[in-house]
Amino acid sequence: MTFSAADHAAMARALQLAARGLDTTSPNPRVGCVIVRDGVTVGEGWHARAGEAHAEVHALRQAGAAARGATAYVTLEPCSHFGRTPPCADALIEAGVARVVAAMEDPNPLVAGRGLARLRASGIATAHGLLADAAHELNIGFVSRMTRGRPWVRLKVAGTLDGKSALDNGVSQWITGPAARRDGHRWRARACAVLTGIGTVREDDPQLNVRDVPCARQPLRILVDARLEVSAQARILRGEPILIATASTDEARIDALRAAGHELVCVPNAAGKVELGALLRVLGERGLNEVHVEAGFKLNGSLMREGCVDELLIYLAPMLVGDAAQGLFNLPALTRLEGATRLDIRDLRRIGADLRLIARPLSKG
Amino acid sequence: MTFSAADHAAMARALQLAARGLDTTSPNPRVGCVIVRDGVTVGEGWHARAGEAHAEVHALRQAGAAARGATAYVTLEPCSHFGRTPPCADALIEAGVARVVAAMEDPNPLVAGRGLARLRASGIATAHGLLADAAHELNIGFVSRMTRGRPWVRLKVAGTLDGKSALDNGVSQWITGPAARRDGHRWRARACAVLTGIGTVREDDPQLNVRDVPCARQPLRILVDARLEVSAQARILRGEPILIATASTDEARIDALRAAGHELVCVPNAAGKVELGALLRVLGERGLNEVHVEAGFKLNGSLMREGCVDELLIYLAPMLVGDAAQGLFNLPALTRLEGATRLDIRDLRRIGADLRLIARPLSKG
Repeated sequence: MTFSAADHAAMARALQLAARGLDTTSPNPRVGCVIVRDGVTVGEGWHARAGEAHAEVHALRQAGAAARGATAYVTLEPCSHFGRTPPCADALIEAGVARVVAAMEDPNPLVAGRGLARLRASGIATAHGLLADAAHELNIGFVSRMTRGRPWVRLKVAGTLDGKSALDNGVSQWITGPAARRDGHRWRARACAVLTGIGTVREDDPQLNVRDVPCARQPLRILVDARLEVSAQARILRGEPILIATASTDEARIDALRAAGHELVCVPNAAGKVELGALLRVLGERGLNEVHVEAGFKLNGSLMREGCVDELLIYLAPMLVGDAAQGLFNLPALTRLEGATRLDIRDLRRIGADLRLIARPLSKG
Repeated sequence: MTFSAADHAAMARALQLAARGLDTTSPNPRVGCVIVRDGVTVGEGWHARAGEAHAEVHALRQAGAAARGATAYVTLEPCSHFGRTPPCADALIEAGVARVVAAMEDPNPLVAGRGLARLRASGIATAHGLLADAAHELNIGFVSRMTRGRPWVRLKVAGTLDGKSALDNGVSQWITGPAARRDGHRWRARACAVLTGIGTVREDDPQLNVRDVPCARQPLRILVDARLEVSAQARILRGEPILIATASTDEARIDALRAAGHELVCVPNAAGKVELGALLRVLGERGLNEVHVEAGFKLNGSLMREGCVDELLIYLAPMLVGDAAQGLFNLPALTRLEGATRLDIRDLRRIGADLRLIARPLSKG
């Protein structure tokens, strides 16, 4: 399938529109739609919030009668089922569009292609695969949940150029500068949930909400606290209720936290800690697409070791603090470099005075 | 002083020419010269090797009679004294140039301005400060030696993204990829000397010469070996004689190394180690402009702590090896972030799969 320059331009615009829903569509994917007739854009739309109209519906409304005979560009295959809204494939058929181009098929392998098939059955020309990589990246969490049953886990660490997250005595806050912290809040804002561990709550007492950038809805906050040691005064327990993953069956503590409105999920492993893979499956079932982790040395290391990290967001401050300071990840000692966790660096830039890397762990060969 | 676009273009070209001497002019600075008459370049030259003709002489030869009434652009103020060659200021006067533009004055504060003054005394118009920053960077080692009496020290480290230079058991070679190693050799090639410590010689047994890139002359190799523990079989002792900095007065060892052609300099400190600041002064007296350090955790840390490092060349491989592994610098434990060594990042890029940073330590506030 080859696409014209006009096709590319229209789909690029649809992706731009889709990204407007970056912080708000959860648990739905971010979707944009552009309707073009005789070279003129007659309708644009994007999905803003679950339960509200899909991107195609917005664009069709704007296009009105001009949609007849037009091409609709959508960043994700139109749905063919009744969810909270009627199927978009039907709306496109009714509007009389002549051609539908999707950037990618529905990532759920059980339904992929059905929306496009439904359109073709009504005589509409279809195509897909235009700017598919960008569309995939835009909904990497939704794709992860649909294909693997678990969210995309993005782990943020901030440290120094010599790989230290804190000094020997635990001093850690404000290693990176204000621009990096604001950037970190942007990543929090797009996530469905922000996850931390009891160690970080004890040491830094974070609120873990989005403050430094505008945010239409706060992500769910998740605390991994195997023994339910969280203090009732911890700041993470203020504001909206949180989700606590635990291995504890201490009924008094469970009852107290539930009485305060918090939700608890018990996913113990044999060692009495939280079984992180099982927790991710629970989070996938809850419809969480992207989970943003801001934890400490220990939980970071456990998540890495247990293969639970899909992406690293690494901020490095331009300073050296020496070897006695605390590292970034508690990983097992290696005797051969072959055991190292190799990363694919996807993005590298300066954020204020700091560096930011986006990297994905490569599976070990 | 304002300069025209034509002035800028000519000086940029002169800097380009000067850089051709990057690996070879030591102990002299890298200098380029462009002679322009009526908008036409009539002569170009650069300094290639100490004892050979200076940039101005090459350019004047090429220009011949066309130099009369022309403008000469030089990246460094023309010399006014008899060194191994006659003063370039005199050559410019004899050739009858009308104007001389220097990117920067002679960095030696005791002679700065004398070359230009000599030209002005002969009725030649002079100016300086055009592309001065680039000219300064090109000869940063020469400037350091002239103004501080010591070389510019560039310390290379290669490690992982989590700040480790070696595994717990010492496995360290080949952390970074072939492109980074080749790049490292380019930096070795431009240096007047490559310096390492006895720890690295014992563990990695490096040759410490330039092999991966073309190199017209090998840099001097310097070994810091306080107790003269170097094995007679060490590869660093093969090939050209080396300079050994020691705190030892063990005559048998000193005699054996001298008999093998090596040079020894004894610069002890009170702790029986090498006094690194004193060593740098010795290296400055020997006419070394840029010293490239490739050492290990301990000597790196000592050089940093003693304020001997002017620039860091940091290669980071995209991998994580965990906290048990060996760090990059042996620096004292800090209790407050204010004690950290802050860096000014001057350059950041990918080299093959690795990252490379060029950073300069900022003086502590």
